[in-house]
Amino acid sequence: MNVKATRHELIEVAQGRRTADLYIKGGTVINVYSGEFLRQNVAVYKDCIAYVGESEASIGEKTKVIDAKGKYVAPGYIEPHAHPWVVYNPVSLTKKALSLGTTTVVNDNLFFYLHMGADGFAKMAEDLRELPGNNLWLVRLVSQADYPTEREEFNQESVRRLLAMDEVVGSAEVTRWPLLYNGDPFLLETIDYLKGLGKISDGHTAGCSYEKLNSIVAAGISACHEAITAKESLDRLRLGMWTTLRNSSLRPDLPEIITMITEGKVATNRILMTTDGPHPAFIEEEGLVDGLLRKAVGLGLPPMQALQMVTINAATFLRMDEKIGGIAPARRADLLLLPDLTDFRPELVISAGEVVAAKGELLVQIPELDWERYLSVRPFDLAKADLAQADLHRCPHGAADEPVPVISFRSTVITTQKQMNLPVEKGYVDLSAQSGLVYANLIDRAGKWVTHGIMEHFATNLEGLASTYNTTTQLLTIGRDPEAMALAAARVHELGGGIVIAEGGRVILEIPLPLTGMMTDSPSFEQAVEYQNQLLAAVQQRGYPFHDILYTLLFLTCDFLPGLRLVPLGLYDVRANEVVRPAVKTLLQRG
Amino acid sequence: MNVKATRHELIEVAQGRRTADLYIKGGTVINVYSGEFLRQNVAVYKDCIAYVGESEASIGEKTKVIDAKGKYVAPGYIEPHAHPWVVYNPVSLTKKALSLGTTTVVNDNLFFYLHMGADGFAKMAEDLRELPGNNLWLVRLVSQADYPTEREEFNQESVRRLLAMDEVVGSAEVTRWPLLYNGDPFLLETIDYLKGLGKISDGHTAGCSYEKLNSIVAAGISACHEAITAKESLDRLRLGMWTTLRNSSLRPDLPEIITMITEGKVATNRILMTTDGPHPAFIEEEGLVDGLLRKAVGLGLPPMQALQMVTINAATFLRMDEKIGGIAPARRADLLLLPDLTDFRPELVISAGEVVAAKGELLVQIPELDWERYLSVRPFDLAKADLAQADLHRCPHGAADEPVPVISFRSTVITTQKQMNLPVEKGYVDLSAQSGLVYANLIDRAGKWVTHGIMEHFATNLEGLASTYNTTTQLLTIGRDPEAMALAAARVHELGGGIVIAEGGRVILEIPLPLTGMMTDSPSFEQAVEYQNQLLAAVQQRGYPFHDILYTLLFLTCDFLPGLRLVPLGLYDVRANEVVRPAVKTLLQRG
Repeated sequence: MNVKATRHELIEVAQGRRTADLYIKGGTVINVYSGEFLRQNVAVYKDCIAYVGESEASIGEKTKVIDAKGKYVAPGYIEPHAHPWVVYNPVSLTKKALSLGTTTVVNDNLFFYLHMGADGFAKMAEDLRELPGNNLWLVRLVSQADYPTEREEFNQESVRRLLAMDEVVGSAEVTRWPLLYNGDPFLLETIDYLKGLGKISDGHTAGCSYEKLNSIVAAGISACHEAITAKESLDRLRLGMWTTLRNSSLRPDLPEIITMITEGKVATNRILMTTDGPHPAFIEEEGLVDGLLRKAVGLGLPPMQALQMVTINAATFLRMDEKIGGIAPARRADLLLLPDLTDFRPELVISAGEVVAAKGELLVQIPELDWERYLSVRPFDLAKADLAQADLHRCPHGAADEPVPVISFRSTVITTQKQMNLPVEKGYVDLSAQSGLVYANLIDRAGKWVTHGIMEHFATNLEGLASTYNTTTQLLTIGRDPEAMALAAARVHELGGGIVIAEGGRVILEIPLPLTGMMTDSPSFEQAVEYQNQLLAAVQQRGYPFHDILYTLLFLTCDFLPGLRLVPLGLYDVRANEVVRPAVKTLLQRG
Repeated sequence: MNVKATRHELIEVAQGRRTADLYIKGGTVINVYSGEFLRQNVAVYKDCIAYVGESEASIGEKTKVIDAKGKYVAPGYIEPHAHPWVVYNPVSLTKKALSLGTTTVVNDNLFFYLHMGADGFAKMAEDLRELPGNNLWLVRLVSQADYPTEREEFNQESVRRLLAMDEVVGSAEVTRWPLLYNGDPFLLETIDYLKGLGKISDGHTAGCSYEKLNSIVAAGISACHEAITAKESLDRLRLGMWTTLRNSSLRPDLPEIITMITEGKVATNRILMTTDGPHPAFIEEEGLVDGLLRKAVGLGLPPMQALQMVTINAATFLRMDEKIGGIAPARRADLLLLPDLTDFRPELVISAGEVVAAKGELLVQIPELDWERYLSVRPFDLAKADLAQADLHRCPHGAADEPVPVISFRSTVITTQKQMNLPVEKGYVDLSAQSGLVYANLIDRAGKWVTHGIMEHFATNLEGLASTYNTTTQLLTIGRDPEAMALAAARVHELGGGIVIAEGGRVILEIPLPLTGMMTDSPSFEQAVEYQNQLLAAVQQRGYPFHDILYTLLFLTCDFLPGLRLVPLGLYDVRANEVVRPAVKTLLQRG
């Protein structure tokens, strides 16, 4: 992250020999370094803070003086672990984040890398510098679902090239943490490389015991946000990890994990907070980092400690404490005016020295990106005609007298494996007379393989859904009716990615996600919220028993959550690390 | 700093699949991350910690098990701001530091650079890696006394080359901080360069007001250890600097500045402590970082906070918190056994996985260095015969009726300028009938210039002293008797650097300091203590009224302390930034 103001210019402003661009006067500065609230003024020049104190010497005719009397002046909030691809995209998320005072977002590059390659991703990350928000990146070392060419795509040259980029602060979570536990050579070498660059290595150690965590820390992982109990948080903190308290749409765990601090007695300077890629409606309702602060303070955390967690602690973790996270000279001028220390929604947001939002409304034009410029993967190599064949969406089952392994949903994202005896018709499982079950398939968009399965406790009355929104960005099809599934799939093909529901021979809902199959290309955050609400209503009406369809779809194809899942290699039992039914390696006709 | 253990090996030890080398059992681990005291064991492999917890799976036949029952297990102490050239040298200091539990020392490279150049310094720093202690470096960007070729010697290429070295953590204090305040282009560009490497910029802002500090922080300075009041400390902390509380032999300020914490209410995670290059006898009596802890806790600081300041806080400041400063896997195995939390002298010291000291006694052989290999500056270009001429050591004064500017000592290191009317004989000030005054000269060892002066409130009965121990490492001569001064100077020439006192026509004390003129080449720390004690006794017997002759000599030639001083450019008024009497540009005969 580079700034425009030079040290020379800032020194001159600090000494009153050059006119400040902005001067925030009379507020109570939240000093996250000392932990004090101080009556001070702040002078800003270009994109940086130049001075903090009493002197008004830098105020000139052209200085915009902001009256902060009766207000708190806070450093911009930092979200250290974002997934900017939950239907929203990096641009629409930046707009929403800025309006809520989150001026720095540390993004996961997963789907961008998968669909843009190193070149396209690098180009996009560079173009995002032009946005007023501060978009930093964590670079994936592996995907979230093993597939045959994974290690070729996540190759040393490309990964190291991205890790060396200025806006890349380190490596992203390795969700398959057993790879680290087992000492995967590529991962360990890459971690040594990035530590040599002075960067950090974000982690994901869901369910990892204290004993096993020792190996993960030995592997070089710097942080984890996956603790779901106070005990797990404490395990991570004690082993030297930066411990990130999560309150996401999927896992709103803050009330439990924060007791580590409010009921225990631990140092908080290595504790951070994250929203971990919440779905659009959650952000709309609960906010981003501002929401974490409201919640944390509501749960009894002193406001200063809560604020430190989302500012200077995060900046120090990122090794950027001289650039962001506090109000001092030469820091990026990311500043918020807060009316009190309970709401944390800023009245005014300054990002890189520019007033970008007031009372939740964005005041600046955000440049749109031409996403096509970055994408290098064709949406589908497969022909639309192939997807329109109903047989593709059924579940082959040769041995009629053997039970069928079924994915049984226990919660939004957790499943177990069930063995069921089901009727078989012409080599396919026949669900026509079975209530409560749906077909589910993961279809390679390049047409090389299909993983077939059956699911229960999903949307039992859903005729046909097709979705590229999942951790593999391949095509998921789900439903009771292979004809409807085929119709939905063909429509997703036409859209170049997205989520479509078909029923009664027609498309009844469509969400175009042309950007990697995960994101709209719309700069409107509200559009993402609307899509999500439409989708959730539609599946709930058809029997979906949970509250978060986006995360259900997302993780149905991952390989790090229990238990039975659809992955490129086949129907996969995560705990047993076993492919129960391999993918069918049919190479379909090219489009 | 690199370690020998690989992540693979550490993972195997953590899982009990490889035998630990050391296993510290049954102690109370001081967890500086969470701020807790925990009953845990620590497994060490090669030079790193592999595991912290209950499991004993890594104990094998060859594991050395250390019983820590009833003891605290602390991370090795970190001294973040050392000057390893106060008669002692980096080797003898390392020995002393290790015996006292200070396992990491961040050293100033000043005199090494001046006398070894970039090549010699780099070679020495590399060889010091072989010592069991962890010697890190801060690289000077300018000297401590301006001289005509300063900027050529501290040139961009050499400085940047050193800044990029693995054991160099950043730039050293710029004692002439007005250079930063005035935006010196070389300094600002170099700071931008080193920040790009992810390194830090240590500071020295003695007497700098809060207002002016804004400019110093804008210039990029990361830390300061020069606060002498709680208010000054707070100023630095509030402006985002890492604030280093000093308790040195020269400035034992901890009782005052620590009230910022004990009486105020500030976050302590950006507060560090330093001994700032104390003289040998101080270390012998008061210890190093262990002494800071004793003092701080004695003054009411909770032991955990004090320990965090000298471990994880320092490591985080240095951006090395994943390598040192805490007890967690993959950290360097720098570990101490402490009997209690009041004394802080370790019973056992483990450095890089090796037991190096017990009960204050070093247990290992420390390799000696062949210092000659690194030195590139000849001790004297000047002939011994030139130094033996008494006239060189007098003070020329052409205008007999004009007053003479006199350096008047107010304290160990602070002087003021006095104008005195003194008798002049054949063009020289004649002190033969004046009590209370001595001649004082700074003589270029290459013979290009001499700065002459007169001093009062020094050692009024001293006949002749000559010393290369000063910030310029040029030759100081001081005394009432130019003949005795000449004799002392000639003897220092023979020694190749050092401190010599002559009286009654013979040398009565000599301290050989062949290593840059500042340090013994002896590996014995006790030798340095003895020299210091001899010197202090000798000058005090001759009327020296203060307690620290080493710092008086050191700073007599600096250009950052008030008021009148001997520097290469002449007799210099620091506050006025004015050369009161230029140096005499006589090129003496070459030796």
